[in-house]
Amino acid sequence: MLVDWPEEELRRYLPERDEPDDFDEFWTATLDQARERATPARFVPYDAGLATVDVHDVTFSGFDGQPVRGWFLVPRDASGPLPCVVEYIGYGGGRGLAHERLFWSAAGYAHFVMDTRGQGSAGSSVADTPDPDSAGTPQTPGFMTRGVTDPQTYYYRRVFTDAVRAVEAVREHPVVDATKVVVAGGSQGGGITLAAAGLADGLAAALPDVPFLCHYRRATAITDAYPYQELVTFCRTHRSQADRVFSTLRYFDGVNFAARATAPTLFSVALMDAVCPPSTVFAAFNHYAGERKDITVWPFNGHEGGAGFNQGVQRAYLASLLDA
Amino acid sequence: MLVDWPEEELRRYLPERDEPDDFDEFWTATLDQARERATPARFVPYDAGLATVDVHDVTFSGFDGQPVRGWFLVPRDASGPLPCVVEYIGYGGGRGLAHERLFWSAAGYAHFVMDTRGQGSAGSSVADTPDPDSAGTPQTPGFMTRGVTDPQTYYYRRVFTDAVRAVEAVREHPVVDATKVVVAGGSQGGGITLAAAGLADGLAAALPDVPFLCHYRRATAITDAYPYQELVTFCRTHRSQADRVFSTLRYFDGVNFAARATAPTLFSVALMDAVCPPSTVFAAFNHYAGERKDITVWPFNGHEGGAGFNQGVQRAYLASLLDA
Amino acid sequence: MLVDWPEEELRRYLPERDEPDDFDEFWTATLDQARERATPARFVPYDAGLATVDVHDVTFSGFDGQPVRGWFLVPRDASGPLPCVVEYIGYGGGRGLAHERLFWSAAGYAHFVMDTRGQGSAGSSVADTPDPDSAGTPQTPGFMTRGVTDPQTYYYRRVFTDAVRAVEAVREHPVVDATKVVVAGGSQGGGITLAAAGLADGLAAALPDVPFLCHYRRATAITDAYPYQELVTFCRTHRSQADRVFSTLRYFDGVNFAARATAPTLFSVALMDAVCPPSTVFAAFNHYAGERKDITVWPFNGHEGGAGFNQGVQRAYLASLLDA
Amino acid sequence: MLVDWPEEELRRYLPERDEPDDFDEFWTATLDQARERATPARFVPYDAGLATVDVHDVTFSGFDGQPVRGWFLVPRDASGPLPCVVEYIGYGGGRGLAHERLFWSAAGYAHFVMDTRGQGSAGSSVADTPDPDSAGTPQTPGFMTRGVTDPQTYYYRRVFTDAVRAVEAVREHPVVDATKVVVAGGSQGGGITLAAAGLADGLAAALPDVPFLCHYRRATAITDAYPYQELVTFCRTHRSQADRVFSTLRYFDGVNFAARATAPTLFSVALMDAVCPPSTVFAAFNHYAGERKDITVWPFNGHEGGAGFNQGVQRAYLASLLDA
Amino acid sequence: MLVDWPEEELRRYLPERDEPDDFDEFWTATLDQARERATPARFVPYDAGLATVDVHDVTFSGFDGQPVRGWFLVPRDASGPLPCVVEYIGYGGGRGLAHERLFWSAAGYAHFVMDTRGQGSAGSSVADTPDPDSAGTPQTPGFMTRGVTDPQTYYYRRVFTDAVRAVEAVREHPVVDATKVVVAGGSQGGGITLAAAGLADGLAAALPDVPFLCHYRRATAITDAYPYQELVTFCRTHRSQADRVFSTLRYFDGVNFAARATAPTLFSVALMDAVCPPSTVFAAFNHYAGERKDITVWPFNGHEGGAGFNQGVQRAYLASLLDA
Amino acid sequence: MLVDWPEEELRRYLPERDEPDDFDEFWTATLDQARERATPARFVPYDAGLATVDVHDVTFSGFDGQPVRGWFLVPRDASGPLPCVVEYIGYGGGRGLAHERLFWSAAGYAHFVMDTRGQGSAGSSVADTPDPDSAGTPQTPGFMTRGVTDPQTYYYRRVFTDAVRAVEAVREHPVVDATKVVVAGGSQGGGITLAAAGLADGLAAALPDVPFLCHYRRATAITDAYPYQELVTFCRTHRSQADRVFSTLRYFDGVNFAARATAPTLFSVALMDAVCPPSTVFAAFNHYAGERKDITVWPFNGHEGGAGFNQGVQRAYLASLLDA
Repeated sequence: MLVDWPEEELRRYLPERDEPDDFDEFWTATLDQARERATPARFVPYDAGLATVDVHDVTFSGFDGQPVRGWFLVPRDASGPLPCVVEYIGYGGGRGLAHERLFWSAAGYAHFVMDTRGQGSAGSSVADTPDPDSAGTPQTPGFMTRGVTDPQTYYYRRVFTDAVRAVEAVREHPVVDATKVVVAGGSQGGGITLAAAGLADGLAAALPDVPFLCHYRRATAITDAYPYQELVTFCRTHRSQADRVFSTLRYFDGVNFAARATAPTLFSVALMDAVCPPSTVFAAFNHYAGERKDITVWPFNGHEGGAGFNQGVQRAYLASLLDA
Repeated sequence: MLVDWPEEELRRYLPERDEPDDFDEFWTATLDQARERATPARFVPYDAGLATVDVHDVTFSGFDGQPVRGWFLVPRDASGPLPCVVEYIGYGGGRGLAHERLFWSAAGYAHFVMDTRGQGSAGSSVADTPDPDSAGTPQTPGFMTRGVTDPQTYYYRRVFTDAVRAVEAVREHPVVDATKVVVAGGSQGGGITLAAAGLADGLAAALPDVPFLCHYRRATAITDAYPYQELVTFCRTHRSQADRVFSTLRYFDGVNFAARATAPTLFSVALMDAVCPPSTVFAAFNHYAGERKDITVWPFNGHEGGAGFNQGVQRAYLASLLDA
Repeated sequence: MLVDWPEEELRRYLPERDEPDDFDEFWTATLDQARERATPARFVPYDAGLATVDVHDVTFSGFDGQPVRGWFLVPRDASGPLPCVVEYIGYGGGRGLAHERLFWSAAGYAHFVMDTRGQGSAGSSVADTPDPDSAGTPQTPGFMTRGVTDPQTYYYRRVFTDAVRAVEAVREHPVVDATKVVVAGGSQGGGITLAAAGLADGLAAALPDVPFLCHYRRATAITDAYPYQELVTFCRTHRSQADRVFSTLRYFDGVNFAARATAPTLFSVALMDAVCPPSTVFAAFNHYAGERKDITVWPFNGHEGGAGFNQGVQRAYLASLLDA
Repeated sequence: MLVDWPEEELRRYLPERDEPDDFDEFWTATLDQARERATPARFVPYDAGLATVDVHDVTFSGFDGQPVRGWFLVPRDASGPLPCVVEYIGYGGGRGLAHERLFWSAAGYAHFVMDTRGQGSAGSSVADTPDPDSAGTPQTPGFMTRGVTDPQTYYYRRVFTDAVRAVEAVREHPVVDATKVVVAGGSQGGGITLAAAGLADGLAAALPDVPFLCHYRRATAITDAYPYQELVTFCRTHRSQADRVFSTLRYFDGVNFAARATAPTLFSVALMDAVCPPSTVFAAFNHYAGERKDITVWPFNGHEGGAGFNQGVQRAYLASLLDA
Repeated sequence: MLVDWPEEELRRYLPERDEPDDFDEFWTATLDQARERATPARFVPYDAGLATVDVHDVTFSGFDGQPVRGWFLVPRDASGPLPCVVEYIGYGGGRGLAHERLFWSAAGYAHFVMDTRGQGSAGSSVADTPDPDSAGTPQTPGFMTRGVTDPQTYYYRRVFTDAVRAVEAVREHPVVDATKVVVAGGSQGGGITLAAAGLADGLAAALPDVPFLCHYRRATAITDAYPYQELVTFCRTHRSQADRVFSTLRYFDGVNFAARATAPTLFSVALMDAVCPPSTVFAAFNHYAGERKDITVWPFNGHEGGAGFNQGVQRAYLASLLDA
Repeated sequence: MLVDWPEEELRRYLPERDEPDDFDEFWTATLDQARERATPARFVPYDAGLATVDVHDVTFSGFDGQPVRGWFLVPRDASGPLPCVVEYIGYGGGRGLAHERLFWSAAGYAHFVMDTRGQGSAGSSVADTPDPDSAGTPQTPGFMTRGVTDPQTYYYRRVFTDAVRAVEAVREHPVVDATKVVVAGGSQGGGITLAAAGLADGLAAALPDVPFLCHYRRATAITDAYPYQELVTFCRTHRSQADRVFSTLRYFDGVNFAARATAPTLFSVALMDAVCPPSTVFAAFNHYAGERKDITVWPFNGHEGGAGFNQGVQRAYLASLLDA
């Protein structure tokens, strides 16, 4: 069943944005600090047993200069410069094993898979990056409420900074065409994609797939699905801090990042997706500032969205975009 | 929690086999008929938008000469002859999209992904192969009981024949080293792998991963999980036909195929797997006739087993096996 | 809770019909072909161990002349001619055992229970009729998507043809008053009843009880309940074929059959029925072309609807209708 | 999956009985009191709209002389004397509508359906008999713990007395052959059947189908299924009264009634039945005192057991038993 | 997610009341009868092993003079007269153990915890009060439909009378300031609080917390949660008695009691509460007749509402109210 | 149903302990470091609006000297010295609100409720203590796997140290009789109680109620219930680290602490408790070194165990123990 309005209404939905005055200062300061403390990314060759792909185990400087891991994959005979897809991962997972994400390199791209700090133990893909700066304040199990009572300590401040720094890190690699860096990801990875699109300059494209981390108020009002429900669980206990939680979230809302993003974009959304309800996705899409924007609608799908089909759509989109 | 006995007991479990006298005649006749009606496999180049892999859309003659589809992937610059992994798919899925299964070609192998006839509409990977020979007799939704009241009409008679024919089909292709064909697959794909290992000659290896379709009596006695439960559902309605059902299944039991298989093998099993309980897997493994046999035990996993980790284990196993 | 609008709105709901131009040609051709290939129905006396009912095991020619089974029950001392209730069965079940459906014969009617081809193994009532003409194309487990990508191959083309032929078959029997044949059934049986009411001539009445197979678009938009969900599951995988699926379904929509049906009718509907939501039932009822039409509303029931109470209502309705 | 031991072990299971010394005195006194306060049963003709069955709405004197309702159905042209099946109903249901239970009369028997006092509002069949003598003591929702802290006030004291009185009531009717009264029922009805078989004289047969109300200690130890779980829920709250509860239950255990029953019997049991686990049924069966005893085993069924198939088995059993 | 309208709409929701003409006569007669048959409450000192609280085991005359139990707790060194909180318990529970409810006495109040007749065996708190006057008519498991077909026999007629009598009983105790009796309770206890507030004179305050037993029609239309669902279950079986059920409920609707209540009140409501949906609570609140009324809204909570936080809010409210 | 062996077997169950050689050194070093960095506990009077209890908001030095919060409650007119109950909280909760835990002070004890660092946001009781020393390494949502790959970084190293320090902190308060400190808690609080009993000197008693954190290997083998399942989830992803995880857990196993504990103890255990299965509790109890030991068995309860009844049992136990 449809979890939200019909598509026509979704396409018209342009809610007022809820944005703090110092949104841009907050992020400028955060990113500046990260860059100041950054050291060059290290790309260590890694034997993944593959014949057609060169794999590197990467460590780059993320939030506050902290080390963040990732996989860098390029077609073995690549002469470069290559366009590069920087991919962010869905909730609970990490960069996984190098041989688990072979699509973009097989399609002829450099491909960077960023670890999500602290995640990677939920039964799906593994991760190797700690989140050392956690304030340790009481939190609902999961990551949505880690440090959520203050924008300075909120978990996604660190993750989004890592995401921007990942773009900068791949640009350091000689095989990458720095003008052709694409950010991409599904679900949480889609939310991080929006943040990167709003914060990083000169991106060639942004591909948020069924993005999470958008329009938190409405999300918690219309769905009980996790992980948005972690916010509800936290506010359910810490009854007096709900306003503070939502005040923090204004700095981390995909809707606000979308309004600053200018790269060409191809979203996807699924109309039966209770995890990332369509109206929260369209709220970001309809506010997206870039002029060249499209959205693929999967009418009968849940949070899996277009899955492999969407990969095909994205590949074709990038091919036509980057060849032009 | 463990769904079965502790590992030590599992390793000792060697139940008496329940096998019809004409097991071999049944399969010889079935395969002979398929071969008689076979036409050469067609390998049609397919543009999957990939830069490092050549993809072919294959149609080969399966059961009774019926057309069966598959993807054939080889590294773009492969000079051959290459070892080839023939992969069978888990329950409900089909060959999917060509770009969804890039591991074996990236690892330097020719790779053939066989469609499972009639399946491919359950929400996961798609398929393009019909099952035209269905008798149409009343069946429990799913595929486990399609034609189950007679070995001649049972669904897996057609699927297992397709599987053997797939091995023969890839051997026709010039890039494949016909002495180095490996059969592999997880869950239902693992059950089909065992059937192929018991019925096809000269295989280089068999890699059944958390195999399904083994030791049906015990499976239905100890788990309520689907798809084994489809058998129970059928017998629950057709109360008088239960003996006939289990009589049919003797021709399709992985335990009986294992007892005929001689290729080197690497099984995997997960001790918290309620879908394919460990004792049903060990029943096949312990009866496996080949002298060179190993099993990877995932003690804390459910039916996902080793997932990407298991791919790594399999890759290393084949590398050492085929290089020797 | 109510699964749809309040009753007042439901009574006013008259959605535009979505109907192909060749709807009538399609069905005329299909039925003509079935009649051409038909042989006379066989009524074989069957010993069900009953003292007050004569039971016959019937085989009649259904779709494409294929044999379809049914039970024919008449009160033992019936002198005839008797009115006859032709009953179609709910999803997953078959004609069952002869002694399981004693109501209509006890009430003094001839009663024919038609098997639903291929079904009857889902844990409820058994069946004895195969569906030999299945195209075997990939399908979601169940029957809703068997052959759904083409009206010619769709499963319900065969079932609805069987239903019309069943009416014709009972008219061949001497004890039946051919002018007093009533079609009836609940859920899927109600959907088949609507098809028969739209396709068969001269029916005395149609009694669709909480009918399924109506207004597919809205059904998939407002409920996640099975079996409508099988359509969603299929479209979820076969993303590019959704339009084709719904194009096929236009030939099989109870709303379109209702618009052609002229027999007196008594529907039933339950306002807490998520399986066959009330608006999909009222869409058919409000479009029903017959002038004499009534609907029994069960406000607190789910898909069980009126159950035995509804039987009583139907009996009284027929008594007053047929005696007049 | 099997919910208990394999069939061979079940057939050998003969647990020690836990029985109070005054078991027989308790029941003799209870029944004597009921008989003293009894008035003759009233059989009021009832128009159920049926052509082949005569229906009577019966009121007879049950526990303490309280009025209990039932349906009495006989084939319309019955000349008598007829054997009579007295049927008790499963948990939560009542006698329902007269036209809902047509099997036994169609098979040529007189048939009496006894209401279960107080029940009949759980969404299935309705009832018309109150339970006026309820002590009103705190109870777990349901009926298992109504008055359970004392044998004198326990709900089933009243129900079992009703059951014996029902046998006596039908014997008053001229069409019934008093030497050929059979008691029957499934689940709770099977438990009541055992009680009647242990307490009533001269029964022609007892047909307990997947009987409930047997071997309470083991039942609560091995299953979480309702309604046995109501006992656990009660003891979970009333922690200090558990011993008292089980002390009461000794007077109401089907195992103890079976040990007193001498009529020929045909049990049924289902090996995948978690509601009435097979070992609790076999405990009663193996203790059953009658020499002529059989049990139908449904190996793949849950609590539905043999359903319509079991009716057929029972019909054939009675035919051969009563004709001999 | 929100289970009902946004807060702004809830605050404006003032549905027409559905009230029988003889509502007041009904209750006057009921209460008069109870008072006529009442004997003085007995306060028996009880050793609960506590050092700072004096506990009494109370028996007072409730409905029809029947004995009802409760705990009476006062701070050990209380000189009185003290304000007294009379507390009613949530569905399924009873007065529990004396040491389980220490809040109000610790806050300096006399505190009376009334048992809910017949309840107290559902796995939570125990009870010691029977419901001897139960008519024993067929009912859905639980208490919502006990005697529901007639206002005279309905379970809550007895409970609400007990509640009013409890207020009168505590006023008999010398330590209680009879002008400062407060009624309070959560869920079912909140519904009983509303009844007491509408029926008892001279209350100092009413504190209904997420009250149940309000606006039954809408409740059954918008939620499937228990215990409101018990009403649906009953009407689902007893299809012809639904009107009678809702006719009875008009005498027991918190909305109608609220319209008669004049004591200062502090409600609470939770916007994610599916058990007692917010619109049913606001229907009572908005109709509440007392001029001094407030409501605490817990926006992210389910049926737990404010829990301990709400206790703090209530304590502060009473402190300011009763000191003024 | 029973989740483990019958009580007789449980009482005999004495599994071999799995303990590292440096267990004692590990804990001595950890506690020494904490004590070195400790500052005196601060007891700040707190107005909880209570009339009979004095409440203090306490901050004491826990692991590594980090501040940990707690509530300290004493009867208002206490002259001291009083015995003191130090209570640890169940999984997911924190110290909550001061007025939520009034039992022990009402019973005449000083009562200290220790916050559990980092927890307190799971929908139950709140907390105010961060866990600043988290390594931030990837973890399964929850707390069971925080830092679990190394004993030095494991979460419960910090919590157990806090627990010992809490005992030392209350001994600093003048109203407390330092020779009469009792440790207590349920579930996780019971596991912490065992740790404190094994690590702190001179305790008057230990009251572990349905203790968690015992016998991890068996726990993960026999139950799927959370929170033990968090360990499985972690090992399911981090397949190669399972041995390391269980190696770490040897330092934190209640069985090993029990073997060092000498204070008189009263355990409780529930035989239907799937969260903390009885055999894991009896493993600790049977290894408990103190000579004076008892266990209360709740045969029909799940993880709620004896609840308020158990409080009564504990109160009586302490009364008799401390008065002697």
